[in-house]
Amino acid sequence: MPPSPIRKLVPYAEAAKKKGTKVYHLNIGQPDIETPAPILDAVRHFDFKVLEYSHSAGNESYRRKLVEYYGKVGVDIQYNQIIVTTGGSEAILFAMMACLDAGDEVIIPEPFYANYNGFAVEAGVKVVPITSDIRSGFALPPLDSFEAAITPRTKAILLCNPNNPTGYLYSREEMETLKSIALRHNLYLFSDEAYREFCYTGTHTSALHLQGADDRIILMDTISKRYSACGGRIGALLTRNQQVLDSVMKFAQARLSPPSFAQIAGEAAVDLPDNYFDTTRAEYQSRRDLIVSRLNHMPGVYCPNPGGAFYAMAELPVDDTDTFCQWLLESFTHQGQTVMLAPASGFYGTPGLGRKEVRLAYVLNKADLSKAMDCLEKALEAYPGKI
Amino acid sequence: MPPSPIRKLVPYAEAAKKKGTKVYHLNIGQPDIETPAPILDAVRHFDFKVLEYSHSAGNESYRRKLVEYYGKVGVDIQYNQIIVTTGGSEAILFAMMACLDAGDEVIIPEPFYANYNGFAVEAGVKVVPITSDIRSGFALPPLDSFEAAITPRTKAILLCNPNNPTGYLYSREEMETLKSIALRHNLYLFSDEAYREFCYTGTHTSALHLQGADDRIILMDTISKRYSACGGRIGALLTRNQQVLDSVMKFAQARLSPPSFAQIAGEAAVDLPDNYFDTTRAEYQSRRDLIVSRLNHMPGVYCPNPGGAFYAMAELPVDDTDTFCQWLLESFTHQGQTVMLAPASGFYGTPGLGRKEVRLAYVLNKADLSKAMDCLEKALEAYPGKI
Repeated sequence: MPPSPIRKLVPYAEAAKKKGTKVYHLNIGQPDIETPAPILDAVRHFDFKVLEYSHSAGNESYRRKLVEYYGKVGVDIQYNQIIVTTGGSEAILFAMMACLDAGDEVIIPEPFYANYNGFAVEAGVKVVPITSDIRSGFALPPLDSFEAAITPRTKAILLCNPNNPTGYLYSREEMETLKSIALRHNLYLFSDEAYREFCYTGTHTSALHLQGADDRIILMDTISKRYSACGGRIGALLTRNQQVLDSVMKFAQARLSPPSFAQIAGEAAVDLPDNYFDTTRAEYQSRRDLIVSRLNHMPGVYCPNPGGAFYAMAELPVDDTDTFCQWLLESFTHQGQTVMLAPASGFYGTPGLGRKEVRLAYVLNKADLSKAMDCLEKALEAYPGKI
Repeated sequence: MPPSPIRKLVPYAEAAKKKGTKVYHLNIGQPDIETPAPILDAVRHFDFKVLEYSHSAGNESYRRKLVEYYGKVGVDIQYNQIIVTTGGSEAILFAMMACLDAGDEVIIPEPFYANYNGFAVEAGVKVVPITSDIRSGFALPPLDSFEAAITPRTKAILLCNPNNPTGYLYSREEMETLKSIALRHNLYLFSDEAYREFCYTGTHTSALHLQGADDRIILMDTISKRYSACGGRIGALLTRNQQVLDSVMKFAQARLSPPSFAQIAGEAAVDLPDNYFDTTRAEYQSRRDLIVSRLNHMPGVYCPNPGGAFYAMAELPVDDTDTFCQWLLESFTHQGQTVMLAPASGFYGTPGLGRKEVRLAYVLNKADLSKAMDCLEKALEAYPGKI
C-alpha cells in the first residue's frame, strides 16, 4: 500500500508552524467555502430517536431526491440505479471491486488523483497510466495511447472530469472518444465527477450523458466538493447496468450502511436554490484567474489555464519539486510566511514524470492566495536548486 | 462476493408485510433501545461552519476521549494507537488488508458474523473455519482444532467476544489460550469487541487485557451496539503494534477521513454517566432470560444460555432452517403475525453445518418478544417439515 503523496510533507508543515511560520495550504482540496447553512440546519433538526442503520444503498428518500438533482444536470437515472456510498472514495473502491478481478487492469490518464493507487491496491487491480501533457493543458491522450495500453486484462478506463489534479475539462468529443473505446474493447468507463459544477470554460459532459453505452458506464460521485461537505463522507455510485448494481450491493451490504447524519445533509442539499453554484463558481473562477495569471508572470513558470475543478498544475524552473516543496517548508520564509504545494510526482504512475510540476489547490480566499503567490515568487528567486 | 445471508429473506418479509402480516424482526442486530439523548444533542449542537475532512485517524479530541473510555474498561492505550474507522466494518477490513497478503488465511471459530466473509473476499484472504458446538454453548474449540488448521499461510485468528451470532462470552482462560497460540505460531489475534458491555454471566476479557503479546493483538471496535448508534458508522482499530498502525494509516488516508458528525456523537458518548450500561444491560438480560426460557420450553428446541451480546442460537426440530425461515414469512401467520429469524447456515463456513439452527437477536421489547415466541411456538407445531 503506497502512502499518500499529498500528506507526506505534513510533518514538515507542522514543524514550520511550530517555529511560528504561517503556512498557506495549497496542497489539499479542502475548500474554505462555508457549507451552505440549510444543509447544516437540516442535520441540526434531525428528529429520530434511534440512530439506526440506513438501507445499505442509502435512504430511499435520499436516493429519490438524488434523481431530482441528476435530472437538473441532464442525467436521467432511477432511484434504484443509485447506491449511496461513504464518500466518493467508497464509490471508487466499489466500482473497482465489483467490475474487476484481481490482476485486471484499469487505464487512467496521468497525472491522476493519487488515491486511485490506494484503491487499486485494495482491489488487487493494476493501474496502467497513459500520459497527458502539460503543454496541451492535459487534454485526453490520443486514441493511439489507449489502443497501445489495452491488453486482455484491461477491464476499465477511469477518468476524473473535470480533472483532479489538472483541472482539465474534457470536451464532449473526448467523452465520445472514450465511449467508443469502451464499446470497441468491452471496457467499463469509470467517471469520477466530483467537480461537475465547477466548470469555467465550456460545459460539463457527464459520462451518463453519453448514449448507447448504458452497461459500460459507472459514475462515481460525492457531495464533498460540491457543497463543501467533505467531512460528511457521502458519495454515490450510479449505473444503468443491473449486474453491476447487484454486485455493488453485496459490498454495500457487507459494510451495512452509509453514514446517517450526512445523508440528511445530502438530501437537503438538493433543495438549495438553483443559483447556489453561481456564487461558488464565480468565486473559484476569480481565484483561478488570479493564480494562473500570477504563475505565468513568474520567470520560467508555465501554468495552463484549467477549465474546471479547483486545481492548477504548474511547471516550475526547479531541479525537483519534491525537494523544492520540502525546502519551502523547512528552509524558506517570506515575511514569516511560506506556502505548501503538492509535488506532482505522486500524481504520476510512470516513475520519473512530473518532477518539475506541482499541483495548487485554490481553496483559500484571494487575499491569502495573493500572499501565497508572493511567497512562491520569492521562493523561486531564492531556491538553490533553481534552473 | 457472497450476498448477505441475513438479508436474503428480506423480499419475503416485504411481501408478508404487503399482505398485512405483522413481522417481528429477530433477524438483525438493530437495537430498538433509544440512542442516549446526550449523544444526539451533542450532534445537534455542533458549531463548525465548514464540514471539513477530519484527521484520517479521526479527530484527536475524540481519540484522546477514547483513551478515557478504554481506561474505564481496563485497557491501557495511547491516543495515537487508536485509528477511528467508518464503523467496526472498516476496522475489520483494515485489519485484514494491513496484516494479511492476498492468499493468506485467517482462522475463525464458526458460526461467525457472516460479513467477515465479505471483508475476507475484499482483502483477498481465505477464511478457515473451525467449528464450535451448540452442545458446549459454542465454547472455544479445543486447542487441537486450531493446531490442525494452522498452515504456513495462516496469519491471524479472528474472534468476536462476546460472540455474534452465538452470544458466547469467552473466559479469561480461553483468551489466554488464544494468546499462546498466537505467540507460538506468530499469528495476529483480531478481537472484535463490539458487544463488550453486554455481558450477563461472567466478566469481559479484552484481548488488550492480555500481557506480553502487544505486537500480536488488534482490537476492532464500534459504537454501533454499545450506544444504539448503528447509523453513525463510527468504529475504531486499536493496536500497540506500530508497524500495523503505520500500515492501517495508509488505508485510512486513502479514504481521507471517517464521518465527522458521528465522531461528535462518539466523543459525547464517553461522558455518559457510568451507570448508563446498567440499565441497558439489565434490559437485554431480562430479554435473554425470556427468550431462552421460552425456547427451551418448546418441544425439541435447544437453546444454550448466552453469556453476552444480544443474540441466541437455537436448534429447532425442523428439516432445514433456511426453508423454515422462508416458510415463516411466506406461508405462516398466527393472529396475523409472524417472526423473522436468521437461518444459521449463513454463519458457518463449512458447507452443510447449521441446518437446524437459527440466530435470534433480542432487540425488541419483552411484550413483542413474547408475541414473537408465541408465533415461533405455533409455527413449530404447524410446519410441514418438522421432525
